[in-house]
Amino acid sequence: MRIGIIGTGTVGRTLADKLVALGHEVTLGSRSKDNEGALAWAEQAGPNGHNGTFADAAAFGEVVLNATSGTVSLEALRAAGAERLAGKVLVDVSNPLVFSAEGVVSLDPVNTDSVGERIQREFPDARVVKTLNTLSAPLMVEPGRLSGEHNVFVAGEDAAAKAQVVALLGEFGWPADSVLDLGGIQAARGLEMLMPFWLQLMRTFGTTDFNYSFQRAK
Amino acid sequence: MRIGIIGTGTVGRTLADKLVALGHEVTLGSRSKDNEGALAWAEQAGPNGHNGTFADAAAFGEVVLNATSGTVSLEALRAAGAERLAGKVLVDVSNPLVFSAEGVVSLDPVNTDSVGERIQREFPDARVVKTLNTLSAPLMVEPGRLSGEHNVFVAGEDAAAKAQVVALLGEFGWPADSVLDLGGIQAARGLEMLMPFWLQLMRTFGTTDFNYSFQRAK
Repeated sequence: MRIGIIGTGTVGRTLADKLVALGHEVTLGSRSKDNEGALAWAEQAGPNGHNGTFADAAAFGEVVLNATSGTVSLEALRAAGAERLAGKVLVDVSNPLVFSAEGVVSLDPVNTDSVGERIQREFPDARVVKTLNTLSAPLMVEPGRLSGEHNVFVAGEDAAAKAQVVALLGEFGWPADSVLDLGGIQAARGLEMLMPFWLQLMRTFGTTDFNYSFQRAK
Repeated sequence: MRIGIIGTGTVGRTLADKLVALGHEVTLGSRSKDNEGALAWAEQAGPNGHNGTFADAAAFGEVVLNATSGTVSLEALRAAGAERLAGKVLVDVSNPLVFSAEGVVSLDPVNTDSVGERIQREFPDARVVKTLNTLSAPLMVEPGRLSGEHNVFVAGEDAAAKAQVVALLGEFGWPADSVLDLGGIQAARGLEMLMPFWLQLMRTFGTTDFNYSFQRAK
């Protein structure tokens, strides 16, 4: 499948590497066509890895992944272009982290809105699915780093789009029954609001190699 | 031990029942001394269960539990009185849930502040420990409702106070190694911000009988 990735940070490159390894063809999109990181990535990725602008990546992808920081996602997707996102599954992996001068993390938007919802509102013809924002990049594409059952989440308005994302997560190694569907895109609020808790857990555990699982009454 | 509970809702009464069952002496505090729910609770609780005002409960307790809604906790604790909380472990179980006319839940405070922090700031002589706000009331006092390992969290500035809370959680049935210490009271932000996610999980699982656990790399 042809996949466009918006954002060339650790998350974008990790997803791009995995998708190419799985046999997909990827365009890694950055703000400017001559972004050095994206160029370097495409060079080592082989014939199925390309680089380009946000618009190039969006035009290329049958599925588009938003791997930008949540604080700049709307701007990046505007540059990608609504017409190039229309009708496509748009996987939103972002978290809107804001770092204070003192190093304290907060979120913007938060509480009564989320990046996932904002994207779906501004791009109503895109089929937005929020997922994978609750995990470190290595775990996103290699859930087997952890033993036992652990979970990833999807939220979005379009059931077929969510099914397509669950299939893609399956290629990454996530068993279908480890993917919890939290409902419509408004659930992106809760998923994004996990980040402060996740950061505390990271400090407590001393690693980013952990993930949520649940005990429930049978 | 003598324990004062601020708040007579489901959480307050569930904690009160368990503490009396464990042999502690409890005063359940409400806004007015003649609160019918608190009176009824005290009548059926036996000789170790009392009711009174917020101030009565705070004066009575060697340890004080805040089981009010987080949106009114400061007001309730002001009525309890700073001088009656000074030097005591103050266990904050609250979540600051705000329900919109459409039934959508948000939090106030959120993101750059939390109820736990506000309480500690306004009552600097109280030894605030945030805990148990991530669970349904029945699970708080009976973790064995779920099989397997699952976790509860503590956050606060005072290590001895946290140790005392871990001991109390142990009486409730929480093994010490299931209690994760997330650090200072600022971690209350992340704990309170779990609530929207928790509510989505409740809808997905169709029960409140679930809890967080974690897989991590060994």
